[in-house]
Amino acid sequence: MKINDIPYRSIWLNEDAWSIEIIDQTFLPHEFQLRSLKTLEDAAEAIVNMRVRGAPLIGATAAYGMALAMRDAADDAALERALQQLLSTRPTAVNLRWALDRMNAVLSVTDQGRRVSRAYDMAREICDEDVAINNAIGEHGLGLIRRLWKQKKADAAADGTSPCIHILTHCNAGWLATVDWGTALAPIYKAHDAGIPVHVWVDETRPRNQGAALTAWELVSHGVPHDVIVDNAGGHLMQHGLVDLCITGTDRTARNGDVCNKIGTYLKALAAQDNEVPFFVALPSPTIDWGISDGINLIPIEERGHEEVTLVQGKDKAGRMAVVQITPDGVSARNFAFDVTPARMVSGLITERGICSASEEGLESLFPEYAGESG
Amino acid sequence: MKINDIPYRSIWLNEDAWSIEIIDQTFLPHEFQLRSLKTLEDAAEAIVNMRVRGAPLIGATAAYGMALAMRDAADDAALERALQQLLSTRPTAVNLRWALDRMNAVLSVTDQGRRVSRAYDMAREICDEDVAINNAIGEHGLGLIRRLWKQKKADAAADGTSPCIHILTHCNAGWLATVDWGTALAPIYKAHDAGIPVHVWVDETRPRNQGAALTAWELVSHGVPHDVIVDNAGGHLMQHGLVDLCITGTDRTARNGDVCNKIGTYLKALAAQDNEVPFFVALPSPTIDWGISDGINLIPIEERGHEEVTLVQGKDKAGRMAVVQITPDGVSARNFAFDVTPARMVSGLITERGICSASEEGLESLFPEYAGESG
Repeated sequence: MKINDIPYRSIWLNEDAWSIEIIDQTFLPHEFQLRSLKTLEDAAEAIVNMRVRGAPLIGATAAYGMALAMRDAADDAALERALQQLLSTRPTAVNLRWALDRMNAVLSVTDQGRRVSRAYDMAREICDEDVAINNAIGEHGLGLIRRLWKQKKADAAADGTSPCIHILTHCNAGWLATVDWGTALAPIYKAHDAGIPVHVWVDETRPRNQGAALTAWELVSHGVPHDVIVDNAGGHLMQHGLVDLCITGTDRTARNGDVCNKIGTYLKALAAQDNEVPFFVALPSPTIDWGISDGINLIPIEERGHEEVTLVQGKDKAGRMAVVQITPDGVSARNFAFDVTPARMVSGLITERGICSASEEGLESLFPEYAGESG
Repeated sequence: MKINDIPYRSIWLNEDAWSIEIIDQTFLPHEFQLRSLKTLEDAAEAIVNMRVRGAPLIGATAAYGMALAMRDAADDAALERALQQLLSTRPTAVNLRWALDRMNAVLSVTDQGRRVSRAYDMAREICDEDVAINNAIGEHGLGLIRRLWKQKKADAAADGTSPCIHILTHCNAGWLATVDWGTALAPIYKAHDAGIPVHVWVDETRPRNQGAALTAWELVSHGVPHDVIVDNAGGHLMQHGLVDLCITGTDRTARNGDVCNKIGTYLKALAAQDNEVPFFVALPSPTIDWGISDGINLIPIEERGHEEVTLVQGKDKAGRMAVVQITPDGVSARNFAFDVTPARMVSGLITERGICSASEEGLESLFPEYAGESG
């Protein structure tokens, strides 16, 4: 996507054809800084310190980290050390393990002399595949937005107003979390680029404010009309006809179509249902957990440190990063990271193979290779 | 209520029997500072600069402001000047006008020589009435909590666990917003003081964080078990049986039982309905707007400055009040202050005269003097 009219990905190979460039996301949304990764250690550090985040981007960074490691030493012991070091950066990230397993499966059976070039090839392949998946999600979502727009334009022509499609999103499922396009934001970028007037309601997404920080920064940078709102506002907006469509991402999708996503997603789905606003979830198929038959009761919900609730980070008056405490001393707080939206509230799932109902039948119709498989 | 075991009101007459003491709420939750009001100007300044806030407390402060004014000059011109000066402090506050009208109705027909003592008497009366109303709301709400507790204790005895009643609240409808007890928090204080084990889930209540700051401070100070949560968390908690009861306040209640309260209240009511959690609203009868027959369509929703969304205030590392910007430069934001929860989602209204259904019939059963009156 674009930053001031210049197209970017979130990770790329430099012109020297060996060092890797990332956008250092710890400085966003207040500063745009690039960072070069030249060693295995650089790649691991970038993941650990969340200079890169978002499951697909973590996987891509780890893949390039393997390539950087092979430049230094390509024997079996070095291969194993690099795998272990990268795997330990974010132990629970599914995409990280998936990317490293894939690298290992090929590199371990490749001659040492050819491991460097093979690793770069595969890392590029992993990046390109992610872009292709998100591009496909964007195209399917664009079709949906186009239909809504056609209807709204027709209605508006009758009463003479100048309409636009208002889309509400929660958290950041944009290109910064992937290699390019993003998942929930891909259809929005496609619609904007296709000349459909879209306007995005950006949930700030407490406690970590990924909406207010990252989604807002993406939309400002690409020039997409938007308004940041507090997480409390979406119900009021839907009640008053100010939202045409909700699209969110998902961290994990159960076989029955239940969607586990950033805490607060469920509240927006409730409001959408109560006001008959379509609520869609965009997902690359690797986030489907075919072994989980019931998201609400079987997906464990991570509880994180309470300081994410009691402390807020931002830019102070002098332009420096600063943290303020919003609660009194002595307060107790809890911090649940995700919630599960029941499939019955989800209008449809937007995958790289098309849109389906949020149900086992729906998912199996697009991914028949998993049909009948039990967890 | 208590601060470190010492009982307080939010406003009181000093021992000198003429100057007024308030808790300066602009320093909360980080510092507890008292402030003396000795002149009409002091009282007006405290309201304008939100050293006192909450409709009942603003009314009480204005009433004492009239008493302070009369000490200085009690002729008709001074009376009129004082009324106008106080009325202009927060032009849209209904309680402010109500308190001042009431003071004027009596003072304007009182001899100048007796206006000072009459004004102090009436201001004290207005304060005591507010306390009595909230005390009654607390008693009725206590009955409700006691019934839930009885049931839960019986269920727990069967399976050997140590239960407690979990109550979720939104915003600050506590004693800091009134003279004492509060509205939504009154039943909680009563239950806690009666030895019923209660635990409060405190919505932080973006954008102004009255939950994280004021409700949390009240509960810490009075010693009520609690956890501050982000506004996104309530749906997850209710889905997993971690909330027994929701109680919120209201800024304005329509004749049909629709409730206009701090933005985000509607989302919690949706989650309560979806998970069969009782959702009650506590209100002193002056917040009932008998002239509004349909809250959703007829109550105008204030839109406030976007800096409440983009900037967050708190205490910095050095312990000083500071503001940080959480959004990128160039962002657009919107800030709707309230939303309306449809009566169909409200389990009941807790008033000073008892609990009724959220409906015209329910309200008229408790306030028959308004029955049949049309807006």
